Amino acid sequence: MELISQHVCFDGVQGFYKQQSKETGLPMTFSVYQPPQAKHKKVPVLFYLAGLTCTEETFMIKGGAQRYAAEHGIMLVSPDTSPRRTGIKGASDAWDFGHGAGFYIDATQAPWSDHFRMYSYVVHELRNTIISNFPALADRIGVFGHSMGGHGALTLALKNPDIYKSVSAFAPITAPSQCPWGEKAFSNYLGADRSTWLDHDASALMRARKTPFPQGILIDQGLDDQFLDTELLPHQFEAACWAADQPLTLRRHRGYDHNYYFISTFMQDHIAYHSAILNK
Amino acid sequence: MELISQHVCFDGVQGFYKQQSKETGLPMTFSVYQPPQAKHKKVPVLFYLAGLTCTEETFMIKGGAQRYAAEHGIMLVSPDTSPRRTGIKGASDAWDFGHGAGFYIDATQAPWSDHFRMYSYVVHELRNTIISNFPALADRIGVFGHSMGGHGALTLALKNPDIYKSVSAFAPITAPSQCPWGEKAFSNYLGADRSTWLDHDASALMRARKTPFPQGILIDQGLDDQFLDTELLPHQFEAACWAADQPLTLRRHRGYDHNYYFISTFMQDHIAYHSAILNK
Repeated sequence: MELISQHVCFDGVQGFYKQQSKETGLPMTFSVYQPPQAKHKKVPVLFYLAGLTCTEETFMIKGGAQRYAAEHGIMLVSPDTSPRRTGIKGASDAWDFGHGAGFYIDATQAPWSDHFRMYSYVVHELRNTIISNFPALADRIGVFGHSMGGHGALTLALKNPDIYKSVSAFAPITAPSQCPWGEKAFSNYLGADRSTWLDHDASALMRARKTPFPQGILIDQGLDDQFLDTELLPHQFEAACWAADQPLTLRRHRGYDHNYYFISTFMQDHIAYHSAILNK
Repeated sequence: MELISQHVCFDGVQGFYKQQSKETGLPMTFSVYQPPQAKHKKVPVLFYLAGLTCTEETFMIKGGAQRYAAEHGIMLVSPDTSPRRTGIKGASDAWDFGHGAGFYIDATQAPWSDHFRMYSYVVHELRNTIISNFPALADRIGVFGHSMGGHGALTLALKNPDIYKSVSAFAPITAPSQCPWGEKAFSNYLGADRSTWLDHDASALMRARKTPFPQGILIDQGLDDQFLDTELLPHQFEAACWAADQPLTLRRHRGYDHNYYFISTFMQDHIAYHSAILNK
């Protein structure tokens, strides 16, 4: 693990790092905010998964989360959204697929399967890196994210409720099997057999489970989000939670769009939600 | 004035605009955050001047100020840091001079004097645009900024205490006549006669005045700022305030650098400082 840069922020430390990843076979960048409490004790860890086109910097620059993480004593970790410089032909041609669009899954199809292993990278390798190198409580981990990263947060948590004790999302893709972004990504990464997609679809996963998060799930969604009706489909996840008896707080906000101006507005509530569970 | 985009943020409106400027002779971009209070009444206005290489977006994305502006009912306005696409040879060659480095002065030397008129643009034209087009209180205006924009905030305020009722800065260039950034900019924009520079040097201006801001001036400075001893020289301004009997709160913070991770940490204090004066 190599330190790229660090900055004091709200009396904690904002750092940017690089590691050679076994999962992706490439150098991966990630960011960590250590709250002031981490100077003298281990603290809970909250992973943030960013959306299409973003990097490990986006959340730390635009989210305004450090203030709240410092207040609650929570470490923030954000990975890049895909491996980079994979050398795969066409991987940089689209903004919604390939580089910057790893979708937090392990690709099974060539040529993507060699490097696009963001699920295993985030769930196992990066988590172990954090636990081994930072004052992190291994049994107090939460996850949240935005858009593609909201899909990532929900699916990673639903598949690993033993690892992730809390989960929330901003404007998540909730049913990727049924939207253009998801269909494009899953057909390329996972192949044409749609039955294999359901294991990475938050709404399908929720229907197959029974209340994996008894403390509830928090989702914020702007009603002026240009992707609401085509890509995000929160009503699908809402129906699945209802069927699974999963407590869900889905807040629909008039006027707000898909931007970080929306995310930063509700960041305080999300950090407080995770803190209530992780610091309990 | 043309609206480029707008986003709801902390129940207010974050907007980006373009106007054809008479002062610079070119289209100028700027950003405005209208707090929720502005929906039904006029509110005070706080101008933020950004540093080298920045644009009208930097502060609104990285500063985390909207939350506090919404709490205090203050409108935020941030201009670009220079005219763009001036067509002047070499204007994009350096990161610390030309495009992105207008230094908030009116250039007197060819070829810069045709377009580089950021002083008149910000103090007069943009202020009038804001007062005419937004619910802004014309007699309750403050200014703050970072680095080159901290220089801008201090000098604009010192030259116009009738316009600006409050002034603060993050890591400002306080004595541009005596540092490499200032010498490069002023020698090109203002010419070789250093006596003309003093009218745009916060420390020199302060020495020539008597307590222009009786409510005090607030400056935050990180002690791990890589530009502290070569470019920023806060002790020069501190000495000038002392000599002028000007109340000054200059806070030196261990560990903090020149980044927006520093700025965002102390943003709450600056908005509160301006609000105490502008909302009085």
